[in-house]
Amino acid sequence: MPAEPASVALPLAAARRRRLRADRARQLADLLRHQILAGGFPDGVLPLEDALAADYRASRNTVRQALDLLRGEQIVARQPGVGTVVVCEKFPHGLERLQGLAETLHEHGRVTNEVRTVGPVAAPGPVAHRLGLPEHADVLCVERLRRLNGLPLSLDLSYLPMDIGGELLGCDLENTDVFRLLEQLTGGPLGHAEITLEAVNADAHSAAVLQAPRGAAVLMLERLTHLPDGRPVDLEFIRFRGDRITMSGVLRRSL
Amino acid sequence: MPAEPASVALPLAAARRRRLRADRARQLADLLRHQILAGGFPDGVLPLEDALAADYRASRNTVRQALDLLRGEQIVARQPGVGTVVVCEKFPHGLERLQGLAETLHEHGRVTNEVRTVGPVAAPGPVAHRLGLPEHADVLCVERLRRLNGLPLSLDLSYLPMDIGGELLGCDLENTDVFRLLEQLTGGPLGHAEITLEAVNADAHSAAVLQAPRGAAVLMLERLTHLPDGRPVDLEFIRFRGDRITMSGVLRRSL
Repeated sequence: MPAEPASVALPLAAARRRRLRADRARQLADLLRHQILAGGFPDGVLPLEDALAADYRASRNTVRQALDLLRGEQIVARQPGVGTVVVCEKFPHGLERLQGLAETLHEHGRVTNEVRTVGPVAAPGPVAHRLGLPEHADVLCVERLRRLNGLPLSLDLSYLPMDIGGELLGCDLENTDVFRLLEQLTGGPLGHAEITLEAVNADAHSAAVLQAPRGAAVLMLERLTHLPDGRPVDLEFIRFRGDRITMSGVLRRSL
Repeated sequence: MPAEPASVALPLAAARRRRLRADRARQLADLLRHQILAGGFPDGVLPLEDALAADYRASRNTVRQALDLLRGEQIVARQPGVGTVVVCEKFPHGLERLQGLAETLHEHGRVTNEVRTVGPVAAPGPVAHRLGLPEHADVLCVERLRRLNGLPLSLDLSYLPMDIGGELLGCDLENTDVFRLLEQLTGGPLGHAEITLEAVNADAHSAAVLQAPRGAAVLMLERLTHLPDGRPVDLEFIRFRGDRITMSGVLRRSL
């Protein structure tokens, strides 16, 4: 590589230093984020900047920049007279087993559902196809805004075949997971589900329904659940508020 | 519920209709999004609005609104003389097995890594703790920007204990998954990993590195990988561009 002329080298070196500083702040923010989500600051107050700098082997400037990043994500806030406090609460959704929201969060509080849409619709082609139904068969369409202890968590849209879904019309969809209702109706446990997770920016309407800022990061789950005999029974599109849900599990190297 | 006075009922009814229309457009957009990601439009061109309206049992207005939503997410674009074309490509990362990026995407192209940081650092307290090391022990810190066929996919930060990580310093980190290198160094397969997935909005610096818009949705993966004997060997923080990666797997109802 040819030597840089002195007039270029100085700005380049400065740019490199800025980049390094920004990298370090982000790296520290990631560690703090994990500590916060893991309940590492049980009283909800972060240590003072000096203590953080010592514990995380970082400069005070890096600590300050990292806290700025977490403030930008609305994970912490500065509270006069107290310091930096944790202001987010994320709830863990398991990736280990197929579970409904109320089941997986039962230790964290009560899940309630605002039923926004419920009723039969003619299945769009791809929905009929994925549920193994004839073209244009009716399906039950259910859309619910789901809350934990009153706080909006997710917006769930489900399509179910009418022979099973129709029975849901008389059920308590406001207080019960669809999985649990399906198991009551079919008399046994569900089988498996294919899932796909994505991170998307919320469109304006979804954001408004979820009471999140427009463009907020959303964890989007598409899930096709089957009965034990393999029959597909529930096609769902679920938008989780990114600031309120994490998904956790264990992966193994060999199957 | 008391009857609404006529002067209130009219705007309320109009608001309800608007909400319903917005719900329907989002619901259709979700179906189209899935079809697009599943390769349902192999020539990359969506059917005309009338055909979509028929296939998805929707009004033309709903189709138009749904396409607007997907355009807003930069999944499709309108191309004069051609119609609505698919402009995103998302790659599937498996949730079935513990795999490195090059392994899981080997059918989709070549993964290359720009090594941004590599070298020993004094472990921040929480890193030492999670890797089971003494306070302030040195760890190898590696940060890589990972690309698939030249396109930025993820920004990965790893912390590894020096007795194993130190050996990585002489390895080809630009072209090889760390998992594969670790297996070469330890002479056998890795064990398991605890993972946590979140959706977050990218901070300005991460977005710039990933060449994504500021605030873009990012799929954030925190992963602690263990050797077969249970020793933790690799603590990672990975930011995947939300518009380029999906995570897919199968969940079972009973374990």
